[in-house]
Amino acid sequence: MSTTQHEGFDLSQIPGLAAQLRVDSIRSSTSAGSGHPTSSMSAADLLATLMSRHLRYDWDSPEAPGNDHLVFSKGHASPLLYAVYKAAGVVSDQELMNGYRRFDERLEGHPTPVLPWVDVATGSLGQGLPDAVGIALSGKYLEKAPYRVWVLCGDSEMAEGSMWEALDKASHYGLTNLVTIVDVNRLGQRGPTDLGWDLESYQRRVEAFGARAVVIDGHDIAQIDHALAEADGDLDKPLVILAKTVKGKGFSEVEDADGWHGKPLPQDKAEKAIAELGGESNLLVRGPAAPQIDRPEPTVGTASMPTFEKGEGVATRKAYGAALAALGDADPRVVALDGEVSNSTGTGTFVDGHPERFFEMFIAEQQMVAAATGLSTRGHIAFASSFAAFLTRAADFIRMAPVSRVDLRMVGSHAGVEIGADGPSQMGLEDLALFAATQGSTVLYPADGTSTAALVQQMAETSGVSYMRTTRGEYPGLYEAGEEFPLGGSKTLVSSENDDVTLIGAGVTLHEALSAAATLAEQGTRARVIDAYSIKPIDVEGISAAVEATGGRVVVAEDHHAEGGLGAAVLAGLASAPITDLHLAHLAVDGVPGSGTSAELLDWAGIDAAHIASAARSLLEG
Amino acid sequence: MSTTQHEGFDLSQIPGLAAQLRVDSIRSSTSAGSGHPTSSMSAADLLATLMSRHLRYDWDSPEAPGNDHLVFSKGHASPLLYAVYKAAGVVSDQELMNGYRRFDERLEGHPTPVLPWVDVATGSLGQGLPDAVGIALSGKYLEKAPYRVWVLCGDSEMAEGSMWEALDKASHYGLTNLVTIVDVNRLGQRGPTDLGWDLESYQRRVEAFGARAVVIDGHDIAQIDHALAEADGDLDKPLVILAKTVKGKGFSEVEDADGWHGKPLPQDKAEKAIAELGGESNLLVRGPAAPQIDRPEPTVGTASMPTFEKGEGVATRKAYGAALAALGDADPRVVALDGEVSNSTGTGTFVDGHPERFFEMFIAEQQMVAAATGLSTRGHIAFASSFAAFLTRAADFIRMAPVSRVDLRMVGSHAGVEIGADGPSQMGLEDLALFAATQGSTVLYPADGTSTAALVQQMAETSGVSYMRTTRGEYPGLYEAGEEFPLGGSKTLVSSENDDVTLIGAGVTLHEALSAAATLAEQGTRARVIDAYSIKPIDVEGISAAVEATGGRVVVAEDHHAEGGLGAAVLAGLASAPITDLHLAHLAVDGVPGSGTSAELLDWAGIDAAHIASAARSLLEG
Repeated sequence: MSTTQHEGFDLSQIPGLAAQLRVDSIRSSTSAGSGHPTSSMSAADLLATLMSRHLRYDWDSPEAPGNDHLVFSKGHASPLLYAVYKAAGVVSDQELMNGYRRFDERLEGHPTPVLPWVDVATGSLGQGLPDAVGIALSGKYLEKAPYRVWVLCGDSEMAEGSMWEALDKASHYGLTNLVTIVDVNRLGQRGPTDLGWDLESYQRRVEAFGARAVVIDGHDIAQIDHALAEADGDLDKPLVILAKTVKGKGFSEVEDADGWHGKPLPQDKAEKAIAELGGESNLLVRGPAAPQIDRPEPTVGTASMPTFEKGEGVATRKAYGAALAALGDADPRVVALDGEVSNSTGTGTFVDGHPERFFEMFIAEQQMVAAATGLSTRGHIAFASSFAAFLTRAADFIRMAPVSRVDLRMVGSHAGVEIGADGPSQMGLEDLALFAATQGSTVLYPADGTSTAALVQQMAETSGVSYMRTTRGEYPGLYEAGEEFPLGGSKTLVSSENDDVTLIGAGVTLHEALSAAATLAEQGTRARVIDAYSIKPIDVEGISAAVEATGGRVVVAEDHHAEGGLGAAVLAGLASAPITDLHLAHLAVDGVPGSGTSAELLDWAGIDAAHIASAARSLLEG
Repeated sequence: MSTTQHEGFDLSQIPGLAAQLRVDSIRSSTSAGSGHPTSSMSAADLLATLMSRHLRYDWDSPEAPGNDHLVFSKGHASPLLYAVYKAAGVVSDQELMNGYRRFDERLEGHPTPVLPWVDVATGSLGQGLPDAVGIALSGKYLEKAPYRVWVLCGDSEMAEGSMWEALDKASHYGLTNLVTIVDVNRLGQRGPTDLGWDLESYQRRVEAFGARAVVIDGHDIAQIDHALAEADGDLDKPLVILAKTVKGKGFSEVEDADGWHGKPLPQDKAEKAIAELGGESNLLVRGPAAPQIDRPEPTVGTASMPTFEKGEGVATRKAYGAALAALGDADPRVVALDGEVSNSTGTGTFVDGHPERFFEMFIAEQQMVAAATGLSTRGHIAFASSFAAFLTRAADFIRMAPVSRVDLRMVGSHAGVEIGADGPSQMGLEDLALFAATQGSTVLYPADGTSTAALVQQMAETSGVSYMRTTRGEYPGLYEAGEEFPLGGSKTLVSSENDDVTLIGAGVTLHEALSAAATLAEQGTRARVIDAYSIKPIDVEGISAAVEATGGRVVVAEDHHAEGGLGAAVLAGLASAPITDLHLAHLAVDGVPGSGTSAELLDWAGIDAAHIASAARSLLEG
């Protein structure tokens, strides 16, 4: 490893810079009337030393592939981060004073990638470090780039299990390019943290999780500098710097005092604090240069997607795996992650073909989604999979993905009561609601191999959060190879000119709807059957036309709770193009299921062919 | 501490019992055609020793307050648990062979409290131990009972951060009544675990998190017995037994072999295995008796709920805190938990009055919900609070609550863009969707202090998962003290005989709707304004009548994404009582918000009074 060039300041200049960072943290938050100055002040010495002597960053080219990354896992210390940007000369004092936390400005209350120097949005504690693991995985294994990922963590957030998932994966993958700095200022929002200033406990935990721990006085510049310089050495473990600090450091009236979390200093106190800190200043500093490296454009071929025969039995989870592997053959940007169930989700097929682009996250779904988030910021097309039920574990990380402006592709297998014998703990019955409520998301639920493969290919090209729900069991192929499945579309599988009722299903309930239509046809009732493979966006036009054509009579059946899934999407779609005289029967799972066969449970839930046919007859009888 | 009476078997008898547990695990899963025999066989020696010599349990009185608790955090080892029940004489061999994993039977694929000896449902890995922390908190701090909580964990699930949240809280609260047994069998579902048989790493981690670790050979009966006996001693830390085991132990063909996770043995292999294990047997054993203790009925008084004046400014989060404190005054069963933000959520008011019934969970929302789950199983009325946004962190635990048949009361503050300057990471915009999609849930969203207090009181009496969404800012009181707010009801705040349009809001958007109605009135448009404080169940009748009376014209405004919230509930309600000629405008948050004032962001989201009035005018013009 090359040695960091100690450009920028020498050690004697750091205190002045740190004072400026504190002063600016106070000024911006007082000016905004909200924010976290004291949480910024505790880490100012750490950041002053880091930015001026260790962070290798080309501030004029935030996208430069050799740049280090700086993640504020304690996102509420945004005043400090923005003060760093001012000191680097990329944010003006005017923006700091007039833009912070203001409407339509980019210096938001917590950092987001609206700013070009921010990789991922933080502010939900316990996410920045897990996200950073994804960036470091890319640096070490995919980009093979010399950058380091520096993460500033709060001590309060070390109570989140996700932080330990992150450290576990960091050590498992030998991420010596990841430097975690914990600002142990002892005070959380409402009082002392769990461990307070018990640095020894932090050290034991961090070391037990496979990292190299360095305990320092977070206000001793020489100690800080020495610890940060360890990142230049030949590390054999991820580095974690545990810095004992004082909240509010630099202004005696609030130092280590309870009751000052998340509160700007009132104007008079702010003036006093600034005076105590030596007044305002406008030091500019840039640290060592980033290595000049190229990142070659990937060579992307045309994917040779798997094909499936109409009538051929295939589980959509298996079709997913085959499709992902095919995408991976053609596009080196495609990577996959799984939560220790790749033999069930189908992802195993990708692993077989591209082991070097697969990251096993073991049973740590939060870290899996966070790693996918970090990988996405580096331009990879990351697919993450687990059972649909267990993806709910990562709901807060999924919620934050649109704030981070990343593309997340997630696949949940074993959805619904269809899984049968394993019982309710393994049945995803809320996953559609979770993903549909995610800002800007796409939600897909194919019923056969052909549609699965086509939709997986489109997920790779879709921005934002996209989700595919797959099914455990094998069901016959419904479409010829080559059929197209546009997002926001639907397919009409059975229809005539004089249909009596529309049946809408997706996944397993589409097969049940087809069976119901056959039964109804024997009884003289003509049912139109629609495959709503695209739940968000839903095919408003196609579904409205079908419902209109069938006298407003429609049965929607889904293997999901009644809220937030297919039925809700159909209703919202119909509301935007109102049907006069709507008669809708919504069949969904209610009650807590037990174990059983698929058939028994689909019957129990009232979403099988017999119940769909019966609901249709009831609508016709009026 | 009293010494365990070593009733039941002496050590020489344990191997026979362990063989029976293995044989029965094989028999039940082979008979069912699915299940996890090899994951059961690794832990059979542990359970044979535990049940016969250490578990103090009155099998004929599962509710006896002195009973120990046995939680299978590795819920997939259900064949072993059910074999234990057979050996205790409470489940027949016939039920084991014909009931396991069958429809409408109680021996489900993963254990649930359908069985009287099961405290909480498991099967989503990483939840049993956190739930058990809640049971142990009750035992130590509330019941002050001598019971112990024994938890069998898998090694794979130690990768879940929630397990470390649990151990952290166990040591923080000194839960020496909690015994964690980790079955380190080295193999996960799709191959080796993260740490394999690196018992030293487990030991370092467990000790670093404040527990006493004991490493044993999990097939050496004497070692097991000695380790379990430590639970009888004077512990100063929670006990964690790290047992090195062999997956599939007892049948040489599958021992420590990959590819046998979650697979029953085929009939021929099962027969061979049973022969190798010495054949079938029907040993019956009961271990030491449980201490005979009483659990007095709590004395519950009549709560003197806080009152708020009409027009008085109060934040609903503050009203929540006052209401909870008042409930706590009257009912000793009421307990509270918070994720280190009790000064923001309002829970601080309860803490002030009842510090002994408050459990600070620090920033560990998964553990918070798990502890509430465990406390609920012990009869406490637990309220858990954090920012609405951060409750999503616990989505998988919330999903499992109905499977555990527990009553969970959760309150999410700082909902929506209304919070303003802090930005999107802190804005709950998906919380209603999450809670509404939860089986059997109740979702409430009051707009003033009076309704908040009334609804908090009802939450205490409501079974299943109930959720209240509260708001950051102060808004004027809308109701006189004493007004009633039935679940599933709504309030009409403005109406006349000839209204033109219905405006539906909840929380902050109700105040905006009222303001819109005033503006519309000035312009000659009569708007009916409805407070939909009960989102689930929604007031189908009241809302339908209002919409019908206003020519099918209705504006719904909500500070939430369009999916899964108030608008979706209204649509579902209207679909069940169809309106001819429905004209609905649904105003909800789309796009990623930034920072700003409440007013700026409500305007940006298009959900403020001006947008509601404008939408109403469009409906009337349209």
